[in-house]
Amino acid sequence: MKNFVFAIFVSLFAVNSFSQTEDSAMIKKISDEILTNGKAYDNLRHLTKQIGARLSGSTQMIQAENWGMLLMNESGADKEWLQECMVPHWVRGGKDQAKVKSLNKTLDVLALGNSIGSGKEISAPVILVNSFDELEKRKDEVKGKIVFYNYKFNPTFISTFQSYGDAVGYRGSGASRAAKYGALAVIVRSMSHSADNNPHTGALRYDTAFKKIPAVAIGLRDADWLSDQLQKSKLTVSLKTDGHFLDSVKGNNVIGELTGSEFPNEIITIGGHLDSWDPAEGAHDDGAGVVQTIEILRTFKAVGYKPKHTIRFVLFANEENGLRGGTKYAEEAKNKNEKHIFALESDAGGFTPRGVSFGGSAEQLKKLQSWVSLLQPYGVYEINAGGGGADIGPLNRLLKTPVAEMSPDSQRYFDYHHARNDVFENVNKRELELGAVNMAALIYLIDKYGL
Amino acid sequence: MKNFVFAIFVSLFAVNSFSQTEDSAMIKKISDEILTNGKAYDNLRHLTKQIGARLSGSTQMIQAENWGMLLMNESGADKEWLQECMVPHWVRGGKDQAKVKSLNKTLDVLALGNSIGSGKEISAPVILVNSFDELEKRKDEVKGKIVFYNYKFNPTFISTFQSYGDAVGYRGSGASRAAKYGALAVIVRSMSHSADNNPHTGALRYDTAFKKIPAVAIGLRDADWLSDQLQKSKLTVSLKTDGHFLDSVKGNNVIGELTGSEFPNEIITIGGHLDSWDPAEGAHDDGAGVVQTIEILRTFKAVGYKPKHTIRFVLFANEENGLRGGTKYAEEAKNKNEKHIFALESDAGGFTPRGVSFGGSAEQLKKLQSWVSLLQPYGVYEINAGGGGADIGPLNRLLKTPVAEMSPDSQRYFDYHHARNDVFENVNKRELELGAVNMAALIYLIDKYGL
Repeated sequence: MKNFVFAIFVSLFAVNSFSQTEDSAMIKKISDEILTNGKAYDNLRHLTKQIGARLSGSTQMIQAENWGMLLMNESGADKEWLQECMVPHWVRGGKDQAKVKSLNKTLDVLALGNSIGSGKEISAPVILVNSFDELEKRKDEVKGKIVFYNYKFNPTFISTFQSYGDAVGYRGSGASRAAKYGALAVIVRSMSHSADNNPHTGALRYDTAFKKIPAVAIGLRDADWLSDQLQKSKLTVSLKTDGHFLDSVKGNNVIGELTGSEFPNEIITIGGHLDSWDPAEGAHDDGAGVVQTIEILRTFKAVGYKPKHTIRFVLFANEENGLRGGTKYAEEAKNKNEKHIFALESDAGGFTPRGVSFGGSAEQLKKLQSWVSLLQPYGVYEINAGGGGADIGPLNRLLKTPVAEMSPDSQRYFDYHHARNDVFENVNKRELELGAVNMAALIYLIDKYGL
Repeated sequence: MKNFVFAIFVSLFAVNSFSQTEDSAMIKKISDEILTNGKAYDNLRHLTKQIGARLSGSTQMIQAENWGMLLMNESGADKEWLQECMVPHWVRGGKDQAKVKSLNKTLDVLALGNSIGSGKEISAPVILVNSFDELEKRKDEVKGKIVFYNYKFNPTFISTFQSYGDAVGYRGSGASRAAKYGALAVIVRSMSHSADNNPHTGALRYDTAFKKIPAVAIGLRDADWLSDQLQKSKLTVSLKTDGHFLDSVKGNNVIGELTGSEFPNEIITIGGHLDSWDPAEGAHDDGAGVVQTIEILRTFKAVGYKPKHTIRFVLFANEENGLRGGTKYAEEAKNKNEKHIFALESDAGGFTPRGVSFGGSAEQLKKLQSWVSLLQPYGVYEINAGGGGADIGPLNRLLKTPVAEMSPDSQRYFDYHHARNDVFENVNKRELELGAVNMAALIYLIDKYGL
């Protein structure tokens, strides 16, 4: 009996050892291909420099969809198609302006996405609050004023996404919470650790119970300046913004597919989102995820890997201000009764890989974690329970698909996020490529062993 | 017996558990201090922007030493002093020039450090070799020519330091190996993955058996251009460099000390090097290591941590082209019969922390590795056998001191290394600070528990 158990053990070990070697070799092949012949960086250059910002509804959105279709084909998709969905069409409408006229100081501001324009210029006294708690305590002082939320991006969290989660409520609901007490507009301190003065925009959501009021993000230096000045004396700020919605338009998810050789009806999804905010080029957010997604397609073809399951490479529409693309993708999957076994998203920037966040069962997580030693040489050293990204969230909710998101190093992400410096020059070629290497390796393992 | 063992186990576990909690709390305190009140970034700004490049022998070397002394004092050292050592004084002597006159193309080149000037312009046919092997095979063609080493920085190694180790021989000994066969000068492809055209300088060492010939690094785009042109036709390059040595001068290690409360005669060293190559600001190499070193001193004082062992914070002189500072530090330690229990260096750039490389016994390595779970929340997830940095190498060789070096993420290091873009703007504040956090945490643990 003992010998028998021992024999099984040895035999298991031998098989496992062989598989490990085979998998290591395949992952090395994938890595060498991407690091030597990679196209992700050149593709990102085209997307950012030739097309540029591509907010839902813009001309560039259409250009980006066409570019995506062409690239799916060139990269070796068995087929590629557009999946239509209606997307909101918010426009900035002009140059956002804010000034403290009494001190002749122009403030660097950007209207928040989805926010309403001021119409004519608003001039009103500013009330600074450091938190929602302070807003509630001073609610009687708010009427007729501009509320300046000066809530700090917490430096003590190591993951900057934790600081973001902590602070983003001021951007998302700050306007309506101030409008509730009669504020005329809000100025929101940008969610960033950066040392520059670029304001960081992003979506707000109005609470329909209250009046819609203008809302702008302000750069960090100007936020500190305004805060300092308000210690000395009361101030009036003049604000003019022109944001508004046009009619919704047709947008599209761009989908490329490698059809599975053994399980064509079992689908693995990889994706990033094609839209971006308007002030910059959307290089990290989420040009990186887009070109990494396409790079995995190109690489599987280049190394001759034929997936057992169907793999869909998806460039999602409208992540930033509506999530219509991700929602449409999941709804159609449900309507067609598709079987989705896994989805992976890259939407945290093209930075050096560190981890993967996973939303699925404990057993599935354990299986993923058993592969960490295969990924670690390429950067991913931990896979933790968490969630997938925004675009594959609906797939998880509607179809219970296990989802994951790449967690690259987060230190620089909020230097660029939704700001005018989210440009190609701030993406490092190697970091971008290594992200694609780890994504491709993970997909290879899931395709081979299931989940 | 069983109960007794169980009791010991529980008691050990409780103690260990308490210590872990206490250590976690202390490391969190250190981290919060650095990430909230850190001075490393401002100090780096001063070193790079107010002082700038500080090659051994330059006026800026003296300025940097004076700045270092002042900062040690301001940051709370019990005492600070200069440790004198003679340093070489190589100067570039002018603007390095290279041109393919027949095609009216100026090449972007930088003379290698320690290299001899061409005197008057050298014009000679170019022979391209892709490796030393090729040089040996074609040695009969070399006489009277300029050898162009076009050896590629290997993209398939994940750690860029591996690519560097693989390629740096062309910079170090390429000139003499070509001179052996009668070459007049060498052009060396820069050791970098960067997408720009900046040439990367660095030290060469002449083999005294052969004639000293001029040597330049060439930017990657120009290297590719030159390689392409040489496929089409033979070319002559004209080269002019003016590098030469002046008399050696007095330089200094800058040393600050916190005297140990229990073991004042047992010394822990932390350091980076103060000198830098002349084309840029030496921001990553090694301004980062310098300001991180001082930041740990400041932080220990700020959080009220009184080390049991003596901790020396050392800004080493002349790492780049002589290692005189590191050598002097170890020699004096040996002469004075000092007891050095550990040394830690930061000289791989101010990038996000990932690992630590350790040179010491297997038992010591195991002890260090037992602390990884305490460091992991701050970025360091692995401690591997390897070595310390260059400056503490002599301490390891002469006194058998266990040594370690920070291994931050390496992807961007060789975009900047010894090139004109190694400037303050390319250092991220948070990454720099997190390096200091992990270094401080490691030193705290070694001071508390010994090694």
